[in-house]
Amino acid sequence: MKRYAKVVGLREDQIEEYKRIHREVWPEVLRTIRDCNIRNYSIFLRRMPDGRWFLFSYYEYVGDDHEADMAKMARCPKTQEWWKITDPMQFGLENRAPGEWWAECEEVFHTD
Amino acid sequence: MKRYAKVVGLREDQIEEYKRIHREVWPEVLRTIRDCNIRNYSIFLRRMPDGRWFLFSYYEYVGDDHEADMAKMARCPKTQEWWKITDPMQFGLENRAPGEWWAECEEVFHTD
Repeated sequence: MKRYAKVVGLREDQIEEYKRIHREVWPEVLRTIRDCNIRNYSIFLRRMPDGRWFLFSYYEYVGDDHEADMAKMARCPKTQEWWKITDPMQFGLENRAPGEWWAECEEVFHTD
Repeated sequence: MKRYAKVVGLREDQIEEYKRIHREVWPEVLRTIRDCNIRNYSIFLRRMPDGRWFLFSYYEYVGDDHEADMAKMARCPKTQEWWKITDPMQFGLENRAPGEWWAECEEVFHTD
């Protein structure tokens, strides 16, 4: 199992709507997350000192090919439809790596 | 069980040392974390667009009085000694709540 943490921006005027739609994520989207070997997935919100809001995600990947499973997720039509709603609510970190939307963090400590 | 995510800054010149000491956290500190009902605790590192580095922590609290357990942790002499080393490596978010060091995030989504 590998733990992932990622960050993306959230537009201030979209906070309430983002929270609202995440109280009832479409079942197909949740099923695809699970089918792509993602477990214990949470998203947290925090205003940072620069005044902007950011989403921090945490999940545990239980498969053996994260890249292939992410590609599989991106092929799910309902997930694509979902991202068409959520992507414009977000903004990517200006210093994210090429090809990233959610910018990856580095694990520096873990204890069970 | 309640999930917590928190953020604190990490001074750029302390990154390597912070990572190094977190590869071998003192056993007494780890034991106290566990005794205080914290499970599945991870810390992640990320440079944010403002150019500064931040630590994002995630843990699962399995007790029934988080505040009391945090106070218990703060009474552990070895933990106090550990924080005397780690606190100066960090900086608090300028917009954290009064009394906070690690600034708390809000959970907006979860799926198992």
